[in-house]
Amino acid sequence: MAEKLVGACVFGQSGGPTSVINASAYGVIRTALDAPEITKVYGAAHGVVGILNDVLYDLGEEDAEELELLLNTPSSELGSCRYKIKDESDLKRIHEVFEKYNIRYFFYNGGNDSMDTCQKVSDYLKHAGYECRVIGVPKTIDNDLVGTDHCPGFGSAAKYIATTVAEVNKDARVYDTGAVIVIEIMGRHAGWLTGASALAGLVGMPPDLIYMPEVPFDTDEFLTHVAEIYKANNNCVVAVSEGVRHADGTFVAKAKVSETDGFGHAQLGGTAARLASAIHHKTGAKVRGIELSLLQRCAAHLASQTDIDEAFLAGKSAVEFAIAGETGKMIAFTRETIDGNYKCGILCQPLSVCANMEKKVPREWINDLGNSVTQEFIDYVLPLIQGENTRAKENGLPRFAKLKKIRAV
Amino acid sequence: MAEKLVGACVFGQSGGPTSVINASAYGVIRTALDAPEITKVYGAAHGVVGILNDVLYDLGEEDAEELELLLNTPSSELGSCRYKIKDESDLKRIHEVFEKYNIRYFFYNGGNDSMDTCQKVSDYLKHAGYECRVIGVPKTIDNDLVGTDHCPGFGSAAKYIATTVAEVNKDARVYDTGAVIVIEIMGRHAGWLTGASALAGLVGMPPDLIYMPEVPFDTDEFLTHVAEIYKANNNCVVAVSEGVRHADGTFVAKAKVSETDGFGHAQLGGTAARLASAIHHKTGAKVRGIELSLLQRCAAHLASQTDIDEAFLAGKSAVEFAIAGETGKMIAFTRETIDGNYKCGILCQPLSVCANMEKKVPREWINDLGNSVTQEFIDYVLPLIQGENTRAKENGLPRFAKLKKIRAV
Repeated sequence: MAEKLVGACVFGQSGGPTSVINASAYGVIRTALDAPEITKVYGAAHGVVGILNDVLYDLGEEDAEELELLLNTPSSELGSCRYKIKDESDLKRIHEVFEKYNIRYFFYNGGNDSMDTCQKVSDYLKHAGYECRVIGVPKTIDNDLVGTDHCPGFGSAAKYIATTVAEVNKDARVYDTGAVIVIEIMGRHAGWLTGASALAGLVGMPPDLIYMPEVPFDTDEFLTHVAEIYKANNNCVVAVSEGVRHADGTFVAKAKVSETDGFGHAQLGGTAARLASAIHHKTGAKVRGIELSLLQRCAAHLASQTDIDEAFLAGKSAVEFAIAGETGKMIAFTRETIDGNYKCGILCQPLSVCANMEKKVPREWINDLGNSVTQEFIDYVLPLIQGENTRAKENGLPRFAKLKKIRAV
Repeated sequence: MAEKLVGACVFGQSGGPTSVINASAYGVIRTALDAPEITKVYGAAHGVVGILNDVLYDLGEEDAEELELLLNTPSSELGSCRYKIKDESDLKRIHEVFEKYNIRYFFYNGGNDSMDTCQKVSDYLKHAGYECRVIGVPKTIDNDLVGTDHCPGFGSAAKYIATTVAEVNKDARVYDTGAVIVIEIMGRHAGWLTGASALAGLVGMPPDLIYMPEVPFDTDEFLTHVAEIYKANNNCVVAVSEGVRHADGTFVAKAKVSETDGFGHAQLGGTAARLASAIHHKTGAKVRGIELSLLQRCAAHLASQTDIDEAFLAGKSAVEFAIAGETGKMIAFTRETIDGNYKCGILCQPLSVCANMEKKVPREWINDLGNSVTQEFIDYVLPLIQGENTRAKENGLPRFAKLKKIRAV
């Protein structure tokens, strides 16, 4: 049993938001506020940037009901950043601010870059002889963190993608004149989200073809497959990762807006639009490229309740493990199957296992042709999208948390 | 009291789908199946094209439970078309098919073009001495039909847009580095849908600027307004109609895919992407263009229950009015306010009032600068987005109707 450590905690959010990142925030904040070991609960404005700039919110000043609404609030409520620790001066500054507020617990919610930040802060403070327990709370819609069965945020994005692809696929088949639709899904390096489009098949509306970054993209082969399906069915719906690349490593996508382009010379080529254009050129089909864009990571109205519950649990467990003495760790999920039912377990992984690594979709979960996923992939995702978010509503619209964000002094 | 008319009916869907067009289908089909005057209920495959080609489904063969799931099923379940009656040979053919099946009731679900089709069919059959009652059932997310307070389909699209804009707006403000987001919303000629983005303000997340086709678009003024807001707030969210035009009538958008463009020379400029690029050029801001694309017309998972109920009512009323003797009419909604509460009334309008006309947003519901809407606009839309679709689910995904579509002979 570790020694009891009494002091303040700080919590920060980093990287791209998810629909449920604030559920993890609520897990951390609520548990920390209720813990006798934790004297004050601070929130960092824009993650580690807020710590460096000494902009912290005193979360003890918030209304309990508004805090609870974080369970239903998309985006990163405290603000996020993409800041990478530059050098020792950053770490020294963090140490200073931690001393100022007597911060003894640091909870950081992010992806693999953020786990690297946790690692650096943890190592530095240990070396400096300042006792502070550091726990990373995972989040990413991309589901590419190593050391965990899956990531909070993925299930909700997967549910949004499967639902939306099913709806768009139904819409796409409506005219007698036929159409080809290319749907672009997030994921620069891993195809977890794009693969989740296959779950639209459970509604009878699977995409005809699925392309992920794990398999090199061959344009000719792609166009041939689309043309065949279009010829046979008068319709074709394609799901494609923004991150698909040719065998030589070049992205199919181009930068959406280049530095030098002005009005009238817009460089707009997303992957979907470029591929749709190529299909039109080859087949003459009516085509449409659709980018799910930010919607897939902020559509809290369609969050998976399983994901909300697990995101909350990840935050709560971070505080509990830290109080019990853990440090230099990331919260991770395990998957247990009990009587055929999915159950999410929780454990701590060393940060070194998770930082700066990427988990790709196993090649054996992608079909031989590289244009669809296997049943194993579907079985993996399905439990994560279960349950509806029957959240608070006002005026037929979602009710988001309204925090006071009173600055700590 | 009109004479009792006994015979079969045919129902068809036309134009772009909405989230609730199948709720109107269910209103027609269920009511017709239950009506003693109606001997057979046929569904036309792809609207009037299915009548011309004699491809009708015998809807009496469907399971009642699956038919009811039409209330939760996006897209046009029987298939749609954009076919305009060419000449008298088309009308003659329709007459033939109607004779073949003894069709005495024609219900056609669509927008202003479809009301023109209804008018032509009605006039022709009357002239030919063939007794058939023709009723148009309105639908359009664009809300631009004349003669009705609002259109089935609009409320759900408005709810989707307000919710999504609120979510994206929250996401857009997450980084310390700031951003400008341009969200492109459907509506070639009328700004009803784009204006509905203002309802995100009820969640505390209104777009900063709203541009609709009713007001000529001045690029310099637009860029100045965006730059001012970005400078003041480090963020700016803009909602813009796909149909905004310059004072000379030219669209801000370019064709998304031109006939001659091939891969590598994709012409991809939607309005949002073009404007985002221009903003980046002027301000250096991180920018992103988002097109809501088909999602806004097929996101049945976020349909307004009010809209579902009213769409069903429109279909049901069409059958009831026809049986009572009405013909050559379109179903229309009125708005009553009883003790401060919204109530939707229903009546028949002559097709001639509705066919080929467009209802724009009144200029006085748009602010003086032409970059936002007034409280009157918000008050008009708000009742239409109320109520959640707590629809059937399977596997955490929507459960769509599965019709057998047995071809009539």
